[in-house]
Amino acid sequence: MTKVVKHNSMRSTNTLALFECIRKHGPITKKEIQQHTGLSWGSISTIALELISKKLIVEIKSNESMVGRTPCLLDISNTDNFIIGVDVNLSGLTAALIDLKCRVIKQVREEMFAPNRTNILTKIKLMISQLIASVDDKKKIKGIGLAMPGDIDIQNGISVFVPHFEDFSQVPVKQILEEEFGIEVMIEHDPNCMALTERYMGLAQNVNNFMFIRLSMGIGMSIIFDGKIYRGLNGSAGQFGHITMNPDGPRCSCGNYGCLETYASCETILRKSREGLKMGRAPVLETLLAQGDRLNLATIAKAARGADEFILGIFDDAATYLGIAIANVVNIFNPELIILGGDLMNYQDVFLSKMKRFVDFKCWKNAKHPIEVSTFGSEAAAIGAALLFSDKIYQNAVESEPSLPIRQ
Amino acid sequence: MTKVVKHNSMRSTNTLALFECIRKHGPITKKEIQQHTGLSWGSISTIALELISKKLIVEIKSNESMVGRTPCLLDISNTDNFIIGVDVNLSGLTAALIDLKCRVIKQVREEMFAPNRTNILTKIKLMISQLIASVDDKKKIKGIGLAMPGDIDIQNGISVFVPHFEDFSQVPVKQILEEEFGIEVMIEHDPNCMALTERYMGLAQNVNNFMFIRLSMGIGMSIIFDGKIYRGLNGSAGQFGHITMNPDGPRCSCGNYGCLETYASCETILRKSREGLKMGRAPVLETLLAQGDRLNLATIAKAARGADEFILGIFDDAATYLGIAIANVVNIFNPELIILGGDLMNYQDVFLSKMKRFVDFKCWKNAKHPIEVSTFGSEAAAIGAALLFSDKIYQNAVESEPSLPIRQ
Repeated sequence: MTKVVKHNSMRSTNTLALFECIRKHGPITKKEIQQHTGLSWGSISTIALELISKKLIVEIKSNESMVGRTPCLLDISNTDNFIIGVDVNLSGLTAALIDLKCRVIKQVREEMFAPNRTNILTKIKLMISQLIASVDDKKKIKGIGLAMPGDIDIQNGISVFVPHFEDFSQVPVKQILEEEFGIEVMIEHDPNCMALTERYMGLAQNVNNFMFIRLSMGIGMSIIFDGKIYRGLNGSAGQFGHITMNPDGPRCSCGNYGCLETYASCETILRKSREGLKMGRAPVLETLLAQGDRLNLATIAKAARGADEFILGIFDDAATYLGIAIANVVNIFNPELIILGGDLMNYQDVFLSKMKRFVDFKCWKNAKHPIEVSTFGSEAAAIGAALLFSDKIYQNAVESEPSLPIRQ
Repeated sequence: MTKVVKHNSMRSTNTLALFECIRKHGPITKKEIQQHTGLSWGSISTIALELISKKLIVEIKSNESMVGRTPCLLDISNTDNFIIGVDVNLSGLTAALIDLKCRVIKQVREEMFAPNRTNILTKIKLMISQLIASVDDKKKIKGIGLAMPGDIDIQNGISVFVPHFEDFSQVPVKQILEEEFGIEVMIEHDPNCMALTERYMGLAQNVNNFMFIRLSMGIGMSIIFDGKIYRGLNGSAGQFGHITMNPDGPRCSCGNYGCLETYASCETILRKSREGLKMGRAPVLETLLAQGDRLNLATIAKAARGADEFILGIFDDAATYLGIAIANVVNIFNPELIILGGDLMNYQDVFLSKMKRFVDFKCWKNAKHPIEVSTFGSEAAAIGAALLFSDKIYQNAVESEPSLPIRQ
């Protein structure tokens, strides 16, 4: 059923449109805003005054000397509102402080040794404290967002379960950090955070329907539909790592058989490489390890580049199954864009071209299927976690005061 | 980017909301409309007057005798607007005449022998003429919708290619029928039409995000997102029949290998049954044919019920792969509802319970996955094709006159 639109919801939609326009294009004149949004001069003036009073935007004088009145420019206030984002990941912890223009002001990183409850929470708190200390007034920090792997309860801010983390079930992350810092906390699935980063600042700024695939220890997917995170009926959309590629395939950590993760995750590549070493079938990798390289993805990729046939076979398998899985997604959804990110993309030279060939080959003949690789590094999820508050800061500021009464 | 809302788009959204409310709940009082939509009394009165003048709705006097003023009831006008829908399918042609309340007024059906261009177009024209003749004034027929299989060009109303239809490439169906009847024509993929029927009148009336899977000679899917048909980047979303289930599987009509259709379409079940007969491995089916039954899905299902092991194996394969494919859709998308329809569902007793077990087994552990079977018969696609005009009649009527000028 079509929902009715009321004057006050129209007003708040238009206020958000103006704010987003300034965030994207500021500093910008009212006339330019008019061209971008189609809003009337009067509406822009009224809304701008409101946003200035809320310290969300500022008016700045143009430096250009012009005949007649100097046009005033509107821009996002970059001294009044900051957000902290933290990416909690088995491969390390990253935290970033961003302003309302989505610029990273400061970034810190911690390695993840012995990932148990105490260590993880201590490090998270330490990083947040460092970032808070870099802002002149703590009150200017409007939120702390966390990108979390595993099962999470977004509503209540609870980390329900994370594979490989010790003593980390049912951790009320939101409550713990809000009590510690007195700042509002939100948590979100890590691929969703990375997708938000692409949406606000990356490859998807002009794309409404896209999918972000995180290829790391596990394989996650974020679906952005109509510009928003799509969660599905009960929040379990995006379990792309657990689609069945082969019902007779290897056992997966989820309890099923032949899931995509059993062919194409970093964890699988590591496990298969170890098996190859044990069987004496990965001579190039063995030589690298003998020369002092550590057994990790970087070294395994190096062995592939050194023409280790066994290791090349592992990457070929990953490329084949990933290609088929992505082609299946294209055949069903024909998305505007698929963005690939995560640790595995650091080694794209050893599998990406084969993977793309498989997508081409297995796609429905007419289906366009643009695939791009994220240009962000390991900071993508932390930035996206901060972006969880980007609209919220705006909403909190604007919605704290009732709209002008308008006759219905 | 958030789009701004202007007064006239707000007005037309609210007009549509009111129309839909009356279509769903009419006859209905203004007070009840207010409760359903939240629109003000004044807005309802203004919009109702406009819709009455366009002959979309009518005002009827309530029969209940009440103290004080008799409340007037609003209802959809069921004597002024009709639509014709035609389902063009290899298994037969169905045409239906419906009114604006989505009620089927008359229905006709033609068998599909020798499906070539001349035969098909002649039969379509004949059926449409029969339905037109049953309405007192031809002008009251506001549109003709066609549900088509194969590749279609929706924009231009062209049937590009249909497997199994002879001499039926690049047929300008819209142009041909508009010239013949002088009534506007639209064409749409058949699963999308069936999904519309579910959305307006069936299982999905209160579901915004669902998928409709048509299991017939081929396997098609319609995706309804946010209440609307989702087509994907270049219109090829829903090629569910061509997702790869096994890269080493049998050759598919699309040129690929191991597509879902090669395991679970009616065509595959027919082909495998014929192979079984040739090899003398389907004794129950052989007996049925010897007794005079024709070789079709109904007889094959009868053989399965008669415990023909070979035939049971064919249905088991279909159930297994369909179950895995649907579980994969659930894992990626976690839709609110999956509706199954099409000819194969006439024989659900021989495969559905096994298919559902496979979905349960292969789904991500927490993902809810409601699956229901359409309650419509072979008329579903024809009705849905007519429904293509349901909103359009409304739009044509309302948008023919400019909205009242409102200060921006």
